[in-house]
This record gives sequence, C-alpha cells and structure tokens, in this order.
Amino acid sequence: MTPPDINSPEEQARYRRGLEVLNAIDGGGAPAVMDSLGDIAPALAHHVVAFGFGDLYSRPALEPKQRQLVTLGILASLGGCEPELEVHIKTSLNVGLTPAEIVESFIHTAGYAGFPRAINAIAVAKKVFADRDLLPVT
Amino acid sequence: MTPPDINSPEEQARYRRGLEVLNAIDGGGAPAVMDSLGDIAPALAHHVVAFGFGDLYSRPALEPKQRQLVTLGILASLGGCEPELEVHIKTSLNVGLTPAEIVESFIHTAGYAGFPRAINAIAVAKKVFADRDLLPVT
Amino acid sequence: MTPPDINSPEEQARYRRGLEVLNAIDGGGAPAVMDSLGDIAPALAHHVVAFGFGDLYSRPALEPKQRQLVTLGILASLGGCEPELEVHIKTSLNVGLTPAEIVESFIHTAGYAGFPRAINAIAVAKKVFADRDLLPVT
Amino acid sequence: MTPPDINSPEEQARYRRGLEVLNAIDGGGAPAVMDSLGDIAPALAHHVVAFGFGDLYSRPALEPKQRQLVTLGILASLGGCEPELEVHIKTSLNVGLTPAEIVESFIHTAGYAGFPRAINAIAVAKKVFADRDLLPVT
Amino acid sequence: MTPPDINSPEEQARYRRGLEVLNAIDGGGAPAVMDSLGDIAPALAHHVVAFGFGDLYSRPALEPKQRQLVTLGILASLGGCEPELEVHIKTSLNVGLTPAEIVESFIHTAGYAGFPRAINAIAVAKKVFADRDLLPVT
Amino acid sequence: MTPPDINSPEEQARYRRGLEVLNAIDGGGAPAVMDSLGDIAPALAHHVVAFGFGDLYSRPALEPKQRQLVTLGILASLGGCEPELEVHIKTSLNVGLTPAEIVESFIHTAGYAGFPRAINAIAVAKKVFADRDLLPVT
Repeated sequence: MTPPDINSPEEQARYRRGLEVLNAIDGGGAPAVMDSLGDIAPALAHHVVAFGFGDLYSRPALEPKQRQLVTLGILASLGGCEPELEVHIKTSLNVGLTPAEIVESFIHTAGYAGFPRAINAIAVAKKVFADRDLLPVT
Repeated sequence: MTPPDINSPEEQARYRRGLEVLNAIDGGGAPAVMDSLGDIAPALAHHVVAFGFGDLYSRPALEPKQRQLVTLGILASLGGCEPELEVHIKTSLNVGLTPAEIVESFIHTAGYAGFPRAINAIAVAKKVFADRDLLPVT
Repeated sequence: MTPPDINSPEEQARYRRGLEVLNAIDGGGAPAVMDSLGDIAPALAHHVVAFGFGDLYSRPALEPKQRQLVTLGILASLGGCEPELEVHIKTSLNVGLTPAEIVESFIHTAGYAGFPRAINAIAVAKKVFADRDLLPVT
Repeated sequence: MTPPDINSPEEQARYRRGLEVLNAIDGGGAPAVMDSLGDIAPALAHHVVAFGFGDLYSRPALEPKQRQLVTLGILASLGGCEPELEVHIKTSLNVGLTPAEIVESFIHTAGYAGFPRAINAIAVAKKVFADRDLLPVT
Repeated sequence: MTPPDINSPEEQARYRRGLEVLNAIDGGGAPAVMDSLGDIAPALAHHVVAFGFGDLYSRPALEPKQRQLVTLGILASLGGCEPELEVHIKTSLNVGLTPAEIVESFIHTAGYAGFPRAINAIAVAKKVFADRDLLPVT
Repeated sequence: MTPPDINSPEEQARYRRGLEVLNAIDGGGAPAVMDSLGDIAPALAHHVVAFGFGDLYSRPALEPKQRQLVTLGILASLGGCEPELEVHIKTSLNVGLTPAEIVESFIHTAGYAGFPRAINAIAVAKKVFADRDLLPVT
C-alpha cells in the first residue's frame, strides 16, 4: 500500500498532460495557488493538475465553456470558495464565456441556492471584472 | 406591507409567462412538484413559476442547455436535492443535453465537491436513464 | 480527563431539567429518536436532553415559538435533516406556531437558501399536516 | 421566452412595493449591497427587492421580528454569509429584536449546526453591536 | 486535450494499485457502488479506485484507522451522504476501528456540526451494527 | 423552564473540568476566542468549555490525536470555518499530530469534499506552520 512516486516518469507524464490542459484554459490565477502548495502539500498540487485537469477536465464530453458553467454553479453554491471562484471566473473569461454569461450563472444560482450565495459570487466577479476594465456588464 | 395578490391579473400574467418557459423546457416532472404544493403553499408554487422560470430562467444571457449545466452543478454539490435533481435531469434531456453530458457534469463535480456528491447525483441519473431506456451511457 | 458519569446525581438532575423542557414543548416525536440512541449512543441522548434542552432551549431570551422559528430556518437550510424537521414541525405545532407560520418559514427560506431547500422542507410539513388533518393550509 | 423588462411600469411597480418593504425594515446596510450590484447585475438587485422583499418579505403570515429569527437561523447555519449576516443583524435591530434575542438565536444555532457556525455569527454581531455601542449584551 | 484511456496499460496499472488498497481496507460495500457505475460512468469508478484509493488512500502519512476517522468526520458533517457513510462505517470496522470509536466520532461531530448531523450518522451506524450483531455498543 | 445558573457551584465545577481538558490539549488559540465571547455571549463560552470540552472531548473512547483527526475532517469539509481551523490546527500540533499528518488530513478531504475545501484548509495550515517555522512540511 504505497502511493505512486509523483516524480516517476509515469506520474510526470500525467502531470505534464494536466498542465497542458491547465495552460490551455487558465486565466493566470491557478499557477499561483499551485505554487503556494509547494512547500506544504506538493502532492496535492500534483493531483490537482494530474487528476483534476489531466483526468477530469480533459474529457471531451463537455467543452471548456460548458465545464466552467458547471464549475461556477458548484463554487457559488458551496459557499466559502471565494479564492477558487476568483480563479475560475478568470478561467471562464479565458475560455470564452462573456462577463454577461458569468454573471448570469450567478443570478441563476439565486433560485437554487438563495440570494446570499449569488450576491457573494457576484462580488468576486466584480473584483475580477474591475481589474480587467470589464465593467459595467451589459 | 402587503404582498401581491397571486390571483390578480398582473400576477396571473407573470405566472403565465413563467409557465410558458417551464412548458418549453420541462421534462414532465416539475408540474407534479408544483401540484403537490397546491394545498399547502400555493404561493410558493406561484413564485417558483413566476420568479424562477418567468423572471430568471427566461433571461437570454444563457440558453437552456447552459442553464441546465449550471443547475446540475448546483444541485449535485448542495446535496440532499435528489427530488430536484430528478426533475432537472429530465429537463436537461428535454432541452437537448445528452446523457453523456449530464453524467459528465456529475463526474466533473467530483473534483470540486468530492466523490460522494458525484456518486449520489449519478445514482439519480441512472434511475432516470433506466426508466427511459437510455442505459448504458456511452 | 474523564467525562462526567451520566448516571451521577448531578448529571441526572441536569437530564431531568432537560426532560422537563422537552416534555413542555415536545410534539411526541423526539422521545422516539432518543430511544433509538439507547443501545448505541446513550451519552448522546443524554447530552441532547441535558445540553440541548436543559442548557440551551430553557434559556428565557427567546420563547419557544421564537426558538422554533430559528430552528425551522436552520434545519430547512442545512438540508438532509428530514427526520429532525419532522420532529421540529411537530414541536412547532405543539408550542403554538400555526401551520401557516410553519409553511411561511419555509417559503421565506426560498429567498435565502433557494427553492429546493424550501420545497423539501414543505414536503416534510405536508406529511406531518396530512397525518393531523391540517390540510389545506390557508 | 423573454424576461420581463425591469424598467416596465409593471416591474417598476413591483420594485417600488419591494422598496417600501425594505425601507420599512432596513437597518441601513441593504441599499449599499444593492448599489454594488448596479454596474454588474442590476437585474439581481431588482429581483432581490421586487421578489425578496415585495413578494416574500411582505407576506403577513410572519411579522418582521419572526422573519428575522428565521433569517438569522438560515444565515448562521449556511456559513460563509458574513456580509449578509451583518445586513440582517442590523435589520433585526431595526425591526425590534433586542441584542439579547439576536445573540440567543446564534447560541441556539450551536445545538443544530455546531459551535463554529454559532461563534462566527456572534463575531459578526459583536462588530455590529460595537459600532452601535450596544456592548456588553446583558 | 484528451483524457487518458482508462484501458491503457498505465491506467490499468493505476487501477490495480488502487484496487489493492481498496481490497485491503474494504468492508464489502464499496465494490457494489463501483459496479453500479459500470453502465453509466465507468470512468468515475476508475477514478474513485485509481485516484481515491491508489493515489490518496495509499499515502503513508496516515494509517487506515486514522484516515477513517477523518472520513467519518467529513461524511457525517457534509450530510446527505448516507450511502457513503454506510460503506465507510463497514470499512472502519474492517480496518480495526471499534464500534465504540465509530460512534464516538459521530458524538464528537455533534459539537462541531450540530446534533442532527450526529444523530443521522449514528442511525446509519446502528443499521450496520445491527446487521452484524454488534449492538449494543458499550 | 429556567436554564442553569452558569455561576452556580455545579456549573462552575463543570466549567473547571472542561477547562482542564481544554488546557491539556490547547495550542493557545482557543482562550482568545472564549475571551471574545465575554461581553456578548458568556453563556456560549461557558457551554463550549463545559459541554464541548468537559462533556464531549473528555470522553475516553477516542484519544486527543484521534479526536483532532475527526475535527480536522469536519472543519475542512464544512467550509467557512477558517478561524476554528486555525485553533484546531494548533491544538492538533499540541496533542502530537505532526504537520505531515495534519496536511494529510486535508489532502484526504479532497477526495470526499473536493479540492477547494482541501486547498482552503491547507492555506490555514500554511499560515500556522509559517508562524511556527514548521515549513517546509516533508
């Protein structure tokens, strides 16, 4: 019962495949999170990339814009995921969702998870959009 | 401080607009839920239709397939929403999401909300798909 | 670092005080839950009564009807608490909340925790009210 | 499948009715939240007011103090709703709940949603009460 | 951006390593869940085994009894995870946690996530223990 | 229906027993939280100590290291419990869990509650470990 060596050629190949997916969709925020895990949980960073992006995100049944819509719904309704929402709002823009579509996902969330979750998610979006001069959203 | 009369012409017009949206997307499960509210919370049934569908769902910034992806992410990750998941898996099929796309939304959920939420949502999908002879999903 | 003996005179006095509170407000469902803990977690049953009712519920800053409103909001929004909701809907009736007030608490929940949580809570209320011939709610 | 025009006379009438309710109960915090939505999700601000306050909050089955008790229970137990808790603690004071009743709602929450949710909600209350010179609570 | 072929030699090796871990700890319930995914989401079953058990569970920093304690805390507090709790209560017994330790994990949960989550988890444990003639727990 | 006087000899004895448990395990953070409750909810501080530590934590069925593993799983998966996580990461170190075991609990959480909850919990651990010169974790 030993885990794989994350530095083995097989795991490094998995990691590279995940990183390719991540680089293809990423808005620039995720790598910083990955870096912050380096001195405390490098295996988690490995698995986020190798499993989260290489194994899951790469699957063709949903295209990136569709995956981001699912992700925005999940993160908004879980609550307490502001740092992850920020990363995924940037990623959503990067894969081609418009600011209006991102906002709409959160307005839609109001009906299923209530106004507070929706309003909190929109507050994160507002910060991201302001940094990128994307306000007002029309 | 009085609420609107849900039987007024204005509210009935709002309700009819919501019902039109609901009928356009519905897979057949929602009306049963609405009916079950009739003798205990008719105002809630009114607001689900008038607000949830007439005001929110009808907004053009996301098309129905996109809205369903957000909804599947929300309901799967909230947990304890099996009846609502059943309704929305049917609706998702009805608006044109494929069984593979619905399943993929839940597989994707595993990375953000964990395996249990994903597995529970897929168990609901399996029941819906079995009833409609849509198994196996390929 | 040893816990109190739940059979000591002091703990039995705490338990009796809690049981008095529970009996004063209870709609008949809680004791069954307590009984079911007897052969697996009697200490938990003791603490639910001694702490939950004797220490917390007995506090005069909120009267029972007010406490039940808080409780209904909590249980509806947590989700997955159908057995506890059933107990507390009965308790709410017993302390004098009307069926309309109970239902209204759940309709109100829709705005803050979304329609699914509200609808699920109302489904539990409907079952309790049907058993007691309290439908329709007007 | 088009949503209502939020600037139509009918929607403006709904909005005004909601705003009247909001002004009647508001402690001064909500409008700031509404304003912050103006350049990113004005429709959500409209719906919070028109639906949340005009359609739901205005219903007479619960009076404002009762509604606030339900709301405090919901927001405390959901977690991650600190900004909304702040608004609703102010509103609770404004409609006549005492600081002791507000605190008691959160102490009560400890039994149903655990100590962390209760302690976090009380930390928000402490900040609001300190700003208004309402400490200590007795 | 293509996912790994779960039937490739590399992925089959990952799967076998995970299955070895699963078989070493499993109480007999998990394979049934895995089987149920076969005709709807075989990739998810693959990832639960290859990632969940092969990559995560196999890590030596926590031994199986310790991992089960973390898992019991997570599943009890998430709520709505009754099927997964059942599997993991069986696994916990299998790796050597006593019924009293399992129950104690849930009693402990009461303080951090409230009585309802604790009581619901204990109800699942009671069912598992009854099937195995492990009641009463002393 | 009156609560116990928390200043009575019986309650003071319960409090002292809880404080003894708390002092035996505490990493130095909890008392600050308790102090902050003094002018707003002293009864809650009393119950956290008397019930949470005196009644629950003191129970011998799990030793402190085991209880902390359960607690870390609960707090990480609930989300929005960063202040409590900080206290309990310190307590975990104090009772003898290693930084690697604490981190591993959170990596394990990724499989059951998703990457965001795991990453957020590790961010809190990183802050605690940095303050105590415990980085990198190996």
